[in-house]
Amino acid sequence: MKFVANKDEFLNGIRIVERATVVKGLQPVLANVLIETVGENQIKLFATDFDLSINTTINATIEEEGRFTLPAKKLGEILSRLNDELIKLELNGTTATITCKNSKFDIIGISANEFPKIEENISEDDSMEIETQPFIKAIRQVVSAAAGYETNNLLSGVFSQVNENILEMAATDGNRLARVREAVTNASVREDHPFEMIIPSRVLSELSKIATLTEAENIKICKERKKIVITIDKTKIITSLIYGQFPKYNQLIPQTFPKEAVINKTNMISALERVAVMVNEKNSIVKFEFADNTLKLSGDSPDAGNSQDELDIQYTAEPLAIAFNYKFILEFLKIAEAEEIKIQLNSPLSATVFVPCSEEDYIYLVMPVQLRG
Amino acid sequence: MKFVANKDEFLNGIRIVERATVVKGLQPVLANVLIETVGENQIKLFATDFDLSINTTINATIEEEGRFTLPAKKLGEILSRLNDELIKLELNGTTATITCKNSKFDIIGISANEFPKIEENISEDDSMEIETQPFIKAIRQVVSAAAGYETNNLLSGVFSQVNENILEMAATDGNRLARVREAVTNASVREDHPFEMIIPSRVLSELSKIATLTEAENIKICKERKKIVITIDKTKIITSLIYGQFPKYNQLIPQTFPKEAVINKTNMISALERVAVMVNEKNSIVKFEFADNTLKLSGDSPDAGNSQDELDIQYTAEPLAIAFNYKFILEFLKIAEAEEIKIQLNSPLSATVFVPCSEEDYIYLVMPVQLRG
Repeated sequence: MKFVANKDEFLNGIRIVERATVVKGLQPVLANVLIETVGENQIKLFATDFDLSINTTINATIEEEGRFTLPAKKLGEILSRLNDELIKLELNGTTATITCKNSKFDIIGISANEFPKIEENISEDDSMEIETQPFIKAIRQVVSAAAGYETNNLLSGVFSQVNENILEMAATDGNRLARVREAVTNASVREDHPFEMIIPSRVLSELSKIATLTEAENIKICKERKKIVITIDKTKIITSLIYGQFPKYNQLIPQTFPKEAVINKTNMISALERVAVMVNEKNSIVKFEFADNTLKLSGDSPDAGNSQDELDIQYTAEPLAIAFNYKFILEFLKIAEAEEIKIQLNSPLSATVFVPCSEEDYIYLVMPVQLRG
Repeated sequence: MKFVANKDEFLNGIRIVERATVVKGLQPVLANVLIETVGENQIKLFATDFDLSINTTINATIEEEGRFTLPAKKLGEILSRLNDELIKLELNGTTATITCKNSKFDIIGISANEFPKIEENISEDDSMEIETQPFIKAIRQVVSAAAGYETNNLLSGVFSQVNENILEMAATDGNRLARVREAVTNASVREDHPFEMIIPSRVLSELSKIATLTEAENIKICKERKKIVITIDKTKIITSLIYGQFPKYNQLIPQTFPKEAVINKTNMISALERVAVMVNEKNSIVKFEFADNTLKLSGDSPDAGNSQDELDIQYTAEPLAIAFNYKFILEFLKIAEAEEIKIQLNSPLSATVFVPCSEEDYIYLVMPVQLRG
């Protein structure tokens, strides 16, 4: 194998696929990127941890075809420090030599034969295309509400549905639920056949990062029963779908609320962060007391002391005291774009809904925590 | 105790003294700052880990005198998040209440009686004043060459000598030596009695950070046989001196060198960082080959591969191959201000001296490493 490639393009490709490498696993080859020449003008990079596989194609001038694997991290480090546009890579036995201007590196790799085979071909029967921008925005709005990553845990997935011109995504870890609806144009979905799937949240997080490295306007998704291939620009992400019945979350969202408050996001973030200096680190509880256009926040740390803060808000209903894990609220406030946030309340133990005033299709429901004493 | 203080001034004071707190020690009170009212318009903050004690004074309006200790870290966190200029602190039993605009914190503290007594009074017989700027600059140039911090290890100290109008500082860990001479004006040292001491390198690192938080033009040092008090602005640093005979380092610096190279600092830093991607992580050895206006750098990592780079330099002497721990060289290059660096060489096993071309009073000597094979 021998080729010349543009350094930045090659590095970008490594940065995309290395998200699927396993750095300290039992199989050393999984820490590597498989590099494969394709015809005379392209190389393809592959990485996989079996759960998630990523490949991407970059331009190169091939002088000698071949395939070989090299450690992703070292390769990225080397490329990022080189100071010329073009790099040359040449394979000699188990060593690849990279040269660039006055610099030369011999990197020990592993034979391509040891790299696992990933089936990336999938029927195009069940597929759709969606605009990148609203899809990635929706991912960012819901993904952190999913449960921690575990294979086959339904709640570690994000429910995604595309229905003609509406994308709906939702995630919940049982304590909170984020749901967003985004208008999309030209999603190529058959009217009578909505496109539904539960995608592992980790895969969507990686996709949203990869999207920032490409300029593709559309993302294509092909799915089979338990597998999807997401194509963005020259990159393909192959992963298992989570299979099962996602909770009927829309039924969990109350339709009416007897009480409503409107708060300023920036003030609320500072006040919450202040009060949070003195909370019980085990449960992160902050008490919210709504009364008479005022919100009083308070924290209590058994060893360190307690904290209180007061905010001017819009609230004219009956006084209400309710408590939350403040981290859930802070996470939402930092994602929301609107400056004004509506808080829809019922009773101290009922689901509370946070809605950004200018993005009413994005709702964030949090279950309160019972206050003792 | 009850007082009103400026939030930023109070926070600055905490940031200064908290460098001497012990966060997870056996004595909880050492994680705290002792706050003591002084007269009607000042409070004094103290912290100590027994090795190092720091105190500072800030302005405050005292309404009720007293002394109490509060956790430094929590106090800093709280103050940094408050959003008004003035804060009020009031003691009630074992809890101090801080109020600021709409925010209120009750912080549990520890009685001042549990805080160790630090003797900060010292005879003024043996004292001097020195300009802050050249003193701090000299500290930054030598301090990283000292051995790691251990009580009573002579090489973990920095030798400092003030002789009329010259400050000389030196540090060595046995593998390298940094020595700097700075002109100082008006150092109040008696002509017949040079001021000499070995100050723990850790104390000097803290002093250089504290200096950035104050605007004092001069630093005053009072010393006894085993103790010094360093006064900078309203802050006093009290610490033990290291006692013993510092190596006669000036004798170790060769006076003449048969070979000399001049290199460009920025190019050398990039090339070293590139080559360092492939070095043996156990010894960090990089080989330097000087020949014919060229410097070839090479690294070799037994598992990962090897690296080479070439730099244009000024060098016309006989070819010379020599190896160093590249981290020592990189550390020096990042401190040196000059763009051109002179490298004075002798043989593959002799001390090599690095000198910034425009700061010839700053020299950095590195012992080479023997190359195998």
